[in-house]
Amino acid sequence: MTNSNQNTSKGVSVVSEAVCQQIMGRTEAFSAVENVFSAMAKNSAYNFPVIREAIGHADALYGFKSGFDRDGMVLGLKSGGYWPGNIQKDLTNHQSTVILFDPDTGKLRSLVGGNYLTAIRTAASSAVSIAHLARHDSKVLGLIGAGHQSTFQLRAALEQRDFEKVIAWNKEPENLTRLAVICDELSLPFESVSREVLCAQADVIITITSAFEALIDTNWIKPGTHIACMGTDTIGKQEVDANIFASARVFTDELAQSITLGEAQHAIKAGLINQADIIPIGEVINGTQIGRTSDDEITLFDGTGVGLQDLAVASVAAKLAEEQGLASYFNL
Amino acid sequence: MTNSNQNTSKGVSVVSEAVCQQIMGRTEAFSAVENVFSAMAKNSAYNFPVIREAIGHADALYGFKSGFDRDGMVLGLKSGGYWPGNIQKDLTNHQSTVILFDPDTGKLRSLVGGNYLTAIRTAASSAVSIAHLARHDSKVLGLIGAGHQSTFQLRAALEQRDFEKVIAWNKEPENLTRLAVICDELSLPFESVSREVLCAQADVIITITSAFEALIDTNWIKPGTHIACMGTDTIGKQEVDANIFASARVFTDELAQSITLGEAQHAIKAGLINQADIIPIGEVINGTQIGRTSDDEITLFDGTGVGLQDLAVASVAAKLAEEQGLASYFNL
Repeated sequence: MTNSNQNTSKGVSVVSEAVCQQIMGRTEAFSAVENVFSAMAKNSAYNFPVIREAIGHADALYGFKSGFDRDGMVLGLKSGGYWPGNIQKDLTNHQSTVILFDPDTGKLRSLVGGNYLTAIRTAASSAVSIAHLARHDSKVLGLIGAGHQSTFQLRAALEQRDFEKVIAWNKEPENLTRLAVICDELSLPFESVSREVLCAQADVIITITSAFEALIDTNWIKPGTHIACMGTDTIGKQEVDANIFASARVFTDELAQSITLGEAQHAIKAGLINQADIIPIGEVINGTQIGRTSDDEITLFDGTGVGLQDLAVASVAAKLAEEQGLASYFNL
Repeated sequence: MTNSNQNTSKGVSVVSEAVCQQIMGRTEAFSAVENVFSAMAKNSAYNFPVIREAIGHADALYGFKSGFDRDGMVLGLKSGGYWPGNIQKDLTNHQSTVILFDPDTGKLRSLVGGNYLTAIRTAASSAVSIAHLARHDSKVLGLIGAGHQSTFQLRAALEQRDFEKVIAWNKEPENLTRLAVICDELSLPFESVSREVLCAQADVIITITSAFEALIDTNWIKPGTHIACMGTDTIGKQEVDANIFASARVFTDELAQSITLGEAQHAIKAGLINQADIIPIGEVINGTQIGRTSDDEITLFDGTGVGLQDLAVASVAAKLAEEQGLASYFNL
């Protein structure tokens, strides 16, 4: 609140993409996301309905994710969307801006560039799931997918366990180079493998694709594996065989999204699990639910991506930028 | 488009409340709102679903209205809400900010103070209805309600016909002074009257209250009257007797809102009219529907308030401020 008041007197703070990259590391993102998952499970933070519209221009998908975290006193929205033609204009296809308001007065408080923050909050989400659900002796990390977001996933995941090796698969194998480069930099062995081999070897699997059909068969997965499904955020998308839900212990960031547009949508539709079988990860963080119950259990995290994650990291970024004199200000 | 490109090179433009008041007059607001009603009726502009949340803090109602106008190339949202405790902090209870995006790239384009603009766009809405629906020989203007918004309604309405007298009623009669002052300034006779007398004398009636039950009886209203119902924007609110809908020719800004949370909600619920009986005012503007069909007809405009109105006036404000060097800029 002190910070909010300081800020109000100077005007609306602006935190650019460049400043976000300078001040927000994986540690800050991890704790912001872990805290807000905790607040969601205590019902002191909630997401508002998501707006998502195909606007009929430039093939764009545009919308807002919004919410309020009463614990952290963070109110606002992430606005933006997907403009597939941007790449030809030297702009990223995903355009995001986070807009924060003062929950005490409704006044505009901060504008924060959302492109980099979206990448690190999504990586923090799977990292939180690994921290709370993966076996502590996990040694092999497997990645399905090697797009832009996969590099953030890789770096955040590697900090959660003493991984000794990274293996990965991607539809276009040439993109695996970006993961190999990071492993080389960190002196970790890296191997391009088939999906079957990946499942047979990996202790932790992250799926981060835009797939519309299962890339992983239930029978491939070995006991004790933790799988973080991070790519499915739309009706129709799918990364793993729905049957895995019947035997795995299943967790999610937000139940409402998980069963409708997350990875669990297919298992729910097929009657393989019920909503009551899915545990909000915040309950594990809060200690009101057990995470992994045995070394042989398969745990699955359905990471759908919620507005409160965006607000959480943006709020920390705004606070740090203001404290360090890196924010600019304007008045409305 | 040219303007959009000019702006992008300078960064995100900021148009303050003070600049909005300086550059946006009733004429600019009228044509912005008339144009967007026209675009809505041609299906080249549409509103996205409205988010409205009682956040459980500071008794605040918070939300967003958003949309896309393909004709005007305006994309964005009005964010804000109602903070009842603000008055004690020397802030207005309604806090609004309009945020515009470039429809070609999704990049943040402009931030525009939304408090004053909300007032003039709401006034422009009833003014557009008077311009297109009221008898041309209307001489007496009646106002039900004398809150902050009523002064904007009065000034905008007076410009649409050669009114010779203003009469008004308000639950707290002392507030009528603010309307009397304006009439005095414009050398127009002003009278405080009962609701019955108001309906017997007025050729045009504007209701602008927060009432939850009918303030006007159907039998009081004389033939040929035009009524603009501007206060009802929530389920449960009501300003006029629902029976009036059975005999009046009914118009609205947006059909979907009119039948669910506008003044028409009660007549729809009671089966007095069907959705097909309500004419989008944009169709009258476009000439695809007739407005008033006779001098004796009662016309009723259900003004519910849509996000596209906010975006329309904010877009004009941003354009004018940029052209006149009154915008400031920042980069994200």
